[in-house]
Amino acid sequence: MKTLLVQLAQRGYPVHIGAGLLNQGMLIRERLKQERLCIVTDDRVGPLYLEKLKTALKPLTVESVALPHGEENKDWDTLDLIFTALLKSGYGRDSALIALGGGVVGDLTGFAAASYQRGIPYVQVATTLLAQVDSAIGGKTAINHRYGKNMIGAFHQPLVVLSDVATLDSLDNRQLAAGFAEVIKYGLIKDIRFFEWIEANIQALVARDEDALTHAVVRSCEIKSAIVAADEHEHGERALLNLGHTFGHAIETSLGHGEWLHGEAVAVGLVMCAALSVRQGNFKPTEYRRLCRLLERAGLPIAPPDNISAEEMRKHMSRDKKALAGHLRLVLPQSIGSAVVTSDFDDEALQATLEAEPL
Amino acid sequence: MKTLLVQLAQRGYPVHIGAGLLNQGMLIRERLKQERLCIVTDDRVGPLYLEKLKTALKPLTVESVALPHGEENKDWDTLDLIFTALLKSGYGRDSALIALGGGVVGDLTGFAAASYQRGIPYVQVATTLLAQVDSAIGGKTAINHRYGKNMIGAFHQPLVVLSDVATLDSLDNRQLAAGFAEVIKYGLIKDIRFFEWIEANIQALVARDEDALTHAVVRSCEIKSAIVAADEHEHGERALLNLGHTFGHAIETSLGHGEWLHGEAVAVGLVMCAALSVRQGNFKPTEYRRLCRLLERAGLPIAPPDNISAEEMRKHMSRDKKALAGHLRLVLPQSIGSAVVTSDFDDEALQATLEAEPL
Repeated sequence: MKTLLVQLAQRGYPVHIGAGLLNQGMLIRERLKQERLCIVTDDRVGPLYLEKLKTALKPLTVESVALPHGEENKDWDTLDLIFTALLKSGYGRDSALIALGGGVVGDLTGFAAASYQRGIPYVQVATTLLAQVDSAIGGKTAINHRYGKNMIGAFHQPLVVLSDVATLDSLDNRQLAAGFAEVIKYGLIKDIRFFEWIEANIQALVARDEDALTHAVVRSCEIKSAIVAADEHEHGERALLNLGHTFGHAIETSLGHGEWLHGEAVAVGLVMCAALSVRQGNFKPTEYRRLCRLLERAGLPIAPPDNISAEEMRKHMSRDKKALAGHLRLVLPQSIGSAVVTSDFDDEALQATLEAEPL
Repeated sequence: MKTLLVQLAQRGYPVHIGAGLLNQGMLIRERLKQERLCIVTDDRVGPLYLEKLKTALKPLTVESVALPHGEENKDWDTLDLIFTALLKSGYGRDSALIALGGGVVGDLTGFAAASYQRGIPYVQVATTLLAQVDSAIGGKTAINHRYGKNMIGAFHQPLVVLSDVATLDSLDNRQLAAGFAEVIKYGLIKDIRFFEWIEANIQALVARDEDALTHAVVRSCEIKSAIVAADEHEHGERALLNLGHTFGHAIETSLGHGEWLHGEAVAVGLVMCAALSVRQGNFKPTEYRRLCRLLERAGLPIAPPDNISAEEMRKHMSRDKKALAGHLRLVLPQSIGSAVVTSDFDDEALQATLEAEPL
């Protein structure tokens, strides 16, 4: 087991990464003094891991609520299932929630914890690669709104994060690949050596080699937690983590949440950002091709769906949280291992990128 | 104009109290650096004061959204009207909200600001006595859930609070009286001299004497802001402010939100707490009678509605946020000017109080 610490101004919290952690309930119990616990999971993850986690948490008795799975259910109606379950069972402010699942369960549980009785603690037990490398860490919680992704939410940090890499066995190839999009993103924005390591190990990663997956999760968490520690509420550097997400969210919103996996949309977003940078002369075409090749080898798409027009993309991008005062801001790669947040880009280059014109 | 400062660990903010403040837009403008503003009001307050406030805020241009009024609309559907308006108009994270109205508008606007794009700033312009003496100060925001009042929300402090006592002219007598319940509560928990001042001036207050109302608002805000400064997130002393609210919320939930005004339910809650304290030998019957007399002179009810059974009250009280780990905690007066938070009370005394048996 490897343990990282997310060092925040107010308090830090541990992220434990390893195979079989779901059986080590002490890692959760030692962080909680709350008397009443409720595990929030979904109808796909629950049948696989809920009983195991409950057993590991003994002698604590915990209740649970299972939500309908999928990004299309990351909305108020599903959030209210959590509130209703807690209120019907009389959960008070001395309670805590445990998210057991992927990014959707984590985001819903985190926002439920942030707003139930004005805030109770929660724990993240991440069972997808995307959650383990990204969404379980850093305290961003949210639900989607019909006018945009992640528009309603809160910053609410977990008490502890458990990433059991053995749970990745239950992901299908498409879900696993979706996680690789965020892993590759970390290399692209911050660490060329990590990017090279992914290139050298992509075959082992796709083949689910446990050591390779563990290293990918650990290094991703190291990069993310350092950035979050420096800028918890995204006033500056943390925005780098959004590389590919403005394009990606526009794809997700255009298609309807749940059509593409978040990581798939992010993969295409990375390619579009890189293409825009190439058009501006700020990113080498050879590096662009390396990125595309790596994403393809990871099993990810590199072009947006045919049926989304440039106008449709622009409409959704202008509503993105990263759009400030009407000025669209984008994270753009400068080279592999380096990126900047900027409003300084050419509109024609953006239009060509949105129309997916060949470079 | 009188200005108080709510002194918090992270930052303080001013509370301005006086007649005609709605015309002094600079009091808001000087606190805001956000480019886009949206005033949130309701369909009763908006027609009275919205244009006046917009004029005062010039040269800033502001949009506005008007919600259906009343406690029965303090729910997710109404909150979503704010989110939808903001998203449709493309409001970004560089925006701020201005609540123009009473406690319901303030609670909805505050929670919308807390969770829109994970948090934007907001301002309180309070136009009811209840909001001016209580809900606009201290950062508690929430919506109701069908299983309980104020169950979903956030702590989110405003940038500035404006209490224009001239706006109290537009309240009907019942709404004004509802505010007196909270004013009397401050005297009861913390300040016998203020309680005596209210007794001496209740006629002037009911007659809407501007100087008397201003003093009542100022002294109430002084007491509340001192308590909030000492305990922002209600880990201790702040719970004293809930005197009467556990009984009161149970009445509101039993009747259906909106039937009784919040202040009316609180008035009865104060009486029930005092009665319970008398039964326990911790509060003098003479003080109990003084309290009842003052509430009656203020135009407030002192007995719960006939159609709520003791069982119904108990059911809702056990769900209250103040119930910790299944143990009901109540704020109980010890004398006029002093109260304690306790789980130590006799169940038979509680039952007799819930059944409204004569003392």
